[in-house]
Amino acid sequence: MSDGLKEHCGVFGIWGHAEASHLTYLGLHALQHRGQEAAGIVAGDGEVLRAHRGVGLVADVFDAASLASLSGDRAIGHVRYSTAGPSALANAQPLPFNYARGPLALAHNGNLVNADELKDDLDEQGAIFQTPSDTEVIGHLIAQERGGELPDRIVRALGRVSGAYSLLFLARDQLIGARDPLGFRPLVIGKLGIGYVLASETCALDLIDAEYLCEVEPGELVIVSARGLERRRFAQERRGGRCVFEHIYFARPDTLLFGQGVHEVRKRLGRELARERPAEADVVVPVPDSGVPAAIGFAEAQGIPFDLGLSRSHYVGRTFIEPSQSIRHFGVRVKLSAVRESLRGKRVVVVDDSLVRGTTSRKIVAMLRAAGATEVHLRISAPPTLFPCHFGIDTPTRQELIASSHPVEEIARFVGADSLGYLSLDGIYRALGRERDGYCDACFSGDYLVALPDPARGVRPLRILGS
Amino acid sequence: MSDGLKEHCGVFGIWGHAEASHLTYLGLHALQHRGQEAAGIVAGDGEVLRAHRGVGLVADVFDAASLASLSGDRAIGHVRYSTAGPSALANAQPLPFNYARGPLALAHNGNLVNADELKDDLDEQGAIFQTPSDTEVIGHLIAQERGGELPDRIVRALGRVSGAYSLLFLARDQLIGARDPLGFRPLVIGKLGIGYVLASETCALDLIDAEYLCEVEPGELVIVSARGLERRRFAQERRGGRCVFEHIYFARPDTLLFGQGVHEVRKRLGRELARERPAEADVVVPVPDSGVPAAIGFAEAQGIPFDLGLSRSHYVGRTFIEPSQSIRHFGVRVKLSAVRESLRGKRVVVVDDSLVRGTTSRKIVAMLRAAGATEVHLRISAPPTLFPCHFGIDTPTRQELIASSHPVEEIARFVGADSLGYLSLDGIYRALGRERDGYCDACFSGDYLVALPDPARGVRPLRILGS
Amino acid sequence: MSDGLKEHCGVFGIWGHAEASHLTYLGLHALQHRGQEAAGIVAGDGEVLRAHRGVGLVADVFDAASLASLSGDRAIGHVRYSTAGPSALANAQPLPFNYARGPLALAHNGNLVNADELKDDLDEQGAIFQTPSDTEVIGHLIAQERGGELPDRIVRALGRVSGAYSLLFLARDQLIGARDPLGFRPLVIGKLGIGYVLASETCALDLIDAEYLCEVEPGELVIVSARGLERRRFAQERRGGRCVFEHIYFARPDTLLFGQGVHEVRKRLGRELARERPAEADVVVPVPDSGVPAAIGFAEAQGIPFDLGLSRSHYVGRTFIEPSQSIRHFGVRVKLSAVRESLRGKRVVVVDDSLVRGTTSRKIVAMLRAAGATEVHLRISAPPTLFPCHFGIDTPTRQELIASSHPVEEIARFVGADSLGYLSLDGIYRALGRERDGYCDACFSGDYLVALPDPARGVRPLRILGS
Amino acid sequence: MSDGLKEHCGVFGIWGHAEASHLTYLGLHALQHRGQEAAGIVAGDGEVLRAHRGVGLVADVFDAASLASLSGDRAIGHVRYSTAGPSALANAQPLPFNYARGPLALAHNGNLVNADELKDDLDEQGAIFQTPSDTEVIGHLIAQERGGELPDRIVRALGRVSGAYSLLFLARDQLIGARDPLGFRPLVIGKLGIGYVLASETCALDLIDAEYLCEVEPGELVIVSARGLERRRFAQERRGGRCVFEHIYFARPDTLLFGQGVHEVRKRLGRELARERPAEADVVVPVPDSGVPAAIGFAEAQGIPFDLGLSRSHYVGRTFIEPSQSIRHFGVRVKLSAVRESLRGKRVVVVDDSLVRGTTSRKIVAMLRAAGATEVHLRISAPPTLFPCHFGIDTPTRQELIASSHPVEEIARFVGADSLGYLSLDGIYRALGRERDGYCDACFSGDYLVALPDPARGVRPLRILGS
Repeated sequence: MSDGLKEHCGVFGIWGHAEASHLTYLGLHALQHRGQEAAGIVAGDGEVLRAHRGVGLVADVFDAASLASLSGDRAIGHVRYSTAGPSALANAQPLPFNYARGPLALAHNGNLVNADELKDDLDEQGAIFQTPSDTEVIGHLIAQERGGELPDRIVRALGRVSGAYSLLFLARDQLIGARDPLGFRPLVIGKLGIGYVLASETCALDLIDAEYLCEVEPGELVIVSARGLERRRFAQERRGGRCVFEHIYFARPDTLLFGQGVHEVRKRLGRELARERPAEADVVVPVPDSGVPAAIGFAEAQGIPFDLGLSRSHYVGRTFIEPSQSIRHFGVRVKLSAVRESLRGKRVVVVDDSLVRGTTSRKIVAMLRAAGATEVHLRISAPPTLFPCHFGIDTPTRQELIASSHPVEEIARFVGADSLGYLSLDGIYRALGRERDGYCDACFSGDYLVALPDPARGVRPLRILGS
Repeated sequence: MSDGLKEHCGVFGIWGHAEASHLTYLGLHALQHRGQEAAGIVAGDGEVLRAHRGVGLVADVFDAASLASLSGDRAIGHVRYSTAGPSALANAQPLPFNYARGPLALAHNGNLVNADELKDDLDEQGAIFQTPSDTEVIGHLIAQERGGELPDRIVRALGRVSGAYSLLFLARDQLIGARDPLGFRPLVIGKLGIGYVLASETCALDLIDAEYLCEVEPGELVIVSARGLERRRFAQERRGGRCVFEHIYFARPDTLLFGQGVHEVRKRLGRELARERPAEADVVVPVPDSGVPAAIGFAEAQGIPFDLGLSRSHYVGRTFIEPSQSIRHFGVRVKLSAVRESLRGKRVVVVDDSLVRGTTSRKIVAMLRAAGATEVHLRISAPPTLFPCHFGIDTPTRQELIASSHPVEEIARFVGADSLGYLSLDGIYRALGRERDGYCDACFSGDYLVALPDPARGVRPLRILGS
Repeated sequence: MSDGLKEHCGVFGIWGHAEASHLTYLGLHALQHRGQEAAGIVAGDGEVLRAHRGVGLVADVFDAASLASLSGDRAIGHVRYSTAGPSALANAQPLPFNYARGPLALAHNGNLVNADELKDDLDEQGAIFQTPSDTEVIGHLIAQERGGELPDRIVRALGRVSGAYSLLFLARDQLIGARDPLGFRPLVIGKLGIGYVLASETCALDLIDAEYLCEVEPGELVIVSARGLERRRFAQERRGGRCVFEHIYFARPDTLLFGQGVHEVRKRLGRELARERPAEADVVVPVPDSGVPAAIGFAEAQGIPFDLGLSRSHYVGRTFIEPSQSIRHFGVRVKLSAVRESLRGKRVVVVDDSLVRGTTSRKIVAMLRAAGATEVHLRISAPPTLFPCHFGIDTPTRQELIASSHPVEEIARFVGADSLGYLSLDGIYRALGRERDGYCDACFSGDYLVALPDPARGVRPLRILGS
Repeated sequence: MSDGLKEHCGVFGIWGHAEASHLTYLGLHALQHRGQEAAGIVAGDGEVLRAHRGVGLVADVFDAASLASLSGDRAIGHVRYSTAGPSALANAQPLPFNYARGPLALAHNGNLVNADELKDDLDEQGAIFQTPSDTEVIGHLIAQERGGELPDRIVRALGRVSGAYSLLFLARDQLIGARDPLGFRPLVIGKLGIGYVLASETCALDLIDAEYLCEVEPGELVIVSARGLERRRFAQERRGGRCVFEHIYFARPDTLLFGQGVHEVRKRLGRELARERPAEADVVVPVPDSGVPAAIGFAEAQGIPFDLGLSRSHYVGRTFIEPSQSIRHFGVRVKLSAVRESLRGKRVVVVDDSLVRGTTSRKIVAMLRAAGATEVHLRISAPPTLFPCHFGIDTPTRQELIASSHPVEEIARFVGADSLGYLSLDGIYRALGRERDGYCDACFSGDYLVALPDPARGVRPLRILGS
């Protein structure tokens, strides 16, 4: 229900399985929460790469015929949150292309902070850009390297980019994964039979019965080929920059993220939140589904009953037709409904994982009150979101982040809550049981671990729309 | 996750609102859980009825253009679980037709037990049947009545039918609701501005901000017209026959069903279950989403922690492409995944609301064990399902109902649970706080409240397929 | 290019072929010119009838899967010009239904003049109408007959209807064809292997290599069953009422219509036209494609060169998007274009088969002049269309028929031709080499061979729209 | 009906019209015969280029919404015969990209003979190829030029390519057309209001009421911008290499091709054919539609009556479902049918414009005989097709060209004709009234006017399939 933060992408790759594209399809399904607007698979048979990409959910983009056409025992796939509108298809990944060494396909999760700069350089060298994506920049850098095997080219190309990337490459004879030196986005290695799997999250391994081996380390290249799996460090891991928001909201609850169970961490966030911002109340209700574990933790820590006072519809698509006449809170109401008996006459703690613009929280608080709650105490299992992300999360501008311009009491007033409590940054790291040093929390702290482009240089305008 | 029981239908009607068809669309969306395979709306403007029906979810069947074409301030709608395959469209409702008194549309939730008999009679009188549905039978009966206004014709027609029906009728000048004398299926009345709403469940009223007034009583006709709302009893309510399974599984948690909150009742079912069938365990996990309230109740009653040890995907459609190579438990795994940290090394109570064929439970138990559960105790918040339903629920045949041929211990063995416990019939009524007398529990008890057709007469074969 | 006259329907039936539905699909394709807006097939296997109907061209409505589902060795099919808009699907035929004697499907080409009267009667008897079509009326009449085998029921039912009908019936054990006593619409019998074919035109027989046997006679019932083919007269053929417009425009050029080759007759119409309305000119050009044979005949008779001065596009669909800014004659220009070299500096005779509203002819004349024609003489291979058809052709109202209110010279002025000449009624019968007595020419003469309904009674309004 | 030769593409561009994309849509419709498998438009508003491309006919690819999104007063469009299968979309043009000087879109009709060589060079320089098309090569060459305005870059880039090209370029501030020095493919200039139009054929100008000015000369660049129209020669026209097959078959009859009316030339081809290869016969029938003008000319020259003995269906799509059981000549029969009365008992001359594999001609001859023709004399208004085209026409391999391995008598025997006569090369130039020197007739003569790549170098394999 987060009103504004969206993961950009998820990636999946497999090597050495007769049903490679089919398992990629399943893996992408498990990663669907990381991107719902476009999906694609590129499969290889040692000679040719075959691609199928489309706009929509994984189950919509692929059918039996398109999967059957993606023959071969190796494949990579991608789901993305894409620019809506006419360019959605042009943005779909993996990006397949041919260069001097043959065919290559790229799938990218993350965001390069120096992409515009690199594009300007490439312009100078006569490159043409057919998509608006950063991924094509990486393709050009690899192609422009003078000589060397693919892993060397990739290493040199990555030496020029800055920012967040968990990348998969599929060539004729190898599957390669790479993760930026700070390790912003997750990327894990699994084993399935005689082959290997690379995926954004472990939940994709579980679905296909692959065994989780370990993370691709920040600054590491993983090369899967007929020679098996090789690991190669291409950059020193500085302090880590793992995204804390993956823990708080993005990753799937059953994923083992950066070595910790997501659901478990979220319950601990709820417990910390209860310690920091307790409330006198009769019931703790989550904003489903992502608020559930924190609410369970909160309820346990405070000894208040937990209940599903908000019920979530299973049938919400994106194309719901709005009635022309206003119905109060309509938008949120097709997704959520209040369970009156769990709320009526009660002091309610409602737990959510983020509060971005505040508009959704406002509707939820009103819905709880309309259902009879006598008090509503909103608790957020994260600190106030104050800064935009430059490392792969689609965030509103600072102006739209309500916490960046309003004190907590004003936000509480705006959303209509009797009290509003955020978890502190320290609380997060207590819940994680880890040092802050390994993580990126720039959206809360403004501490960007990579130099951002000079705002004075402006943004390279988009000159081509559509596909 | 119930592997075999499906509600047949949901109905919605509105009178006296400028956006009648749009609100019907919303109402059907709220009732989507009652039927996912076809949907339709018939709207009226006082002169003409306009219909749009299709196969699929409400959000797929309608778009802005089709809703705009359904002009007028009155409408009825229908969602249905329909025979899959070529006849899905022919089965879609509401059924509009023209007869001596003008146009009329019918929407039906329920099942007539004497439909075949009535069809034979109608055959004799020269009727033609263009659909396989019971609803067309009611249409014929109304049209064949000699004279009388529509409500009288309906009353006389309903005098000839036997079984379960919550019916809506839309004529040029009136909207009529009717509920069978035993009241098997729910049907409620709401008020919206100057108009009225009739709907299968109160959740449909809530979505559009209509005020809940009361149930349509069993054996009652409700007539909405320019003269306002009139209520007319057409049959004595015998003992009630409200479907207990609506409480246990079908109705939406936020619905006020037969006067009681669904979610609350389900929590009480969980508490009774804990009392009748306690288990020594470390954690109580529900089979999401329908098992959640009973699991909360169970956990509270036993004082064991509740946790979401099974996570449910939001992206499951019906057309998922199966991999050709077997993956263990694949089918259930795209829907559910185990949260290892909540399960590993623990004795787990898993709570579901029904166990029909046993195949799904078996996969879930295996999944819990694979995630590290040391013991798995399966608890069902209902008695064993022993008999098929003839009153509007699609049930497997007796042969397929595992409990009808196997004792509990064998079922436990089949599903792989360390223990299996059902709630008793008495437990249900204790949870409801009501006498059994007002309810139908034939699927558990075999006590059918309406005489079933003589099995010797056979079933009237379906002679036309497709549309 | 006729701007206003449209054939209503075409029918095809086959008995005794393993690929019955596939051959019906081909037969309907050959009859596609008789109806482009909806198509359907009902196939039988001796037990069950299976139906598939849809909106669009035959090639769009059916795919390999839907054809494969239509199993059995007998089938009937239908193409129709259907009311556009939401009721298109409700109008699609064949109409399958179940009645006392089992399943039955009807496909109808024609129009009943007493349908409204019959509907009123049926209303009285309690019938319900689910479609707006005359075909459903015939279904009711058959079902309401007391006793008797299907052929007897059909004969009695047809005794009550008046107007034009070439009908096909498919029951479990027989395929029946019937043609009204005046024989307005064509219907022929063919032989294919051990089976039989009934079709609107012989071109459908040719496509599937069936042998043409003869026409179904006016007033005749043809029954195909396990006993072979039986023919039974159910009404005396009065004078015939074969539609002359089928010869002039509707039927396909390669069809043998009412015993005469369509293309050949049209050439003779052109020759008669040249005799009656010669023109001093340098070239004769047809309005393609339907005007081609008459133009060939005209050119031969006058000894003027024939040329394709107007070229027709192969890619014209119905959904062409109009530019918002006016382009002169745009509408006709996407279909037709002028070949300058064949026209420039020449006196041109342009031959068309009808002139209904005059707007299309006007655009064509302007196009010819723009291409350099010095004179344009328009010749129509038919008399002025003065009266609407009540027997199965969709005609504009009298007000829209330009010839019904304007003398020839004014029409010539309106369309911009230097001269305008129609063929006389006598000329038609000279070209046919037949007596007028066997034909219906009501659209030219106003001599309706069947009593029309009293205009005072008005038209039964359509009360249900959509599907 | 030509069984094997397909034009590759058609292009259309417009500058200075408020409805630029809509007129492009119409223009592409007029050029639809040049490519039926993919279509696209790129429109510009001075800042941004907007693209919409898709697989299918023009009328299928675009709808009102997509046209409306293509805002701006300048646009280029493309229709293409595309590799069927998964790469159809990747092949769709125009190809839009961004390079150092901003956005640019290319539309190409033709074929480069040194594309593979250039790709190898570009590989060396680090280019990446995202499509299999030659067009992308040209894009790279333009981008890699050091400095200079777009026209200069284009001129230098075209200096490196060899083969056939009629090219359109759309940049922010100019529309550019270019034609190769031999002028293989047509490209014409038109005037519409204050703006200009560039198109493959004049028929596209006629449809939108644009005035034909002249051809883009071989070796000429035409630049349309705010400064009006500039023409610039970038290569000396050697002898011309205009494609004679455009005259014989590809161009639309109403087009003014290379300065001559297509329909008129084809009639003259027929006349020459009659002189070279007369036949004693009773009727001359064309293979419609492309054989019609030659048949008219043949009939006139020999004084034999012309008739439409073969009728062509208007409803033939590409997805017709074949019956599993063989029906003789089925494939051709859904497209063509014989008009018996025009053929029975007659000696028939049938005129077609090409005979490639011979299989279609064989079916047609059989169809004519089955309709009663006593003799069938096949006349082809072109010489035997002996060599593949390398300049933009999709031809079978030499092995599949029946004439390249069989003498005329054997071909006559294969197709079942009593006699077979081709037009001579001399006859073509007599009909054109031109010297052979200005034309390419390599498909007949093997005289390729541009050096072909060394066959020893092999073909660069396609490494990426799909999109």
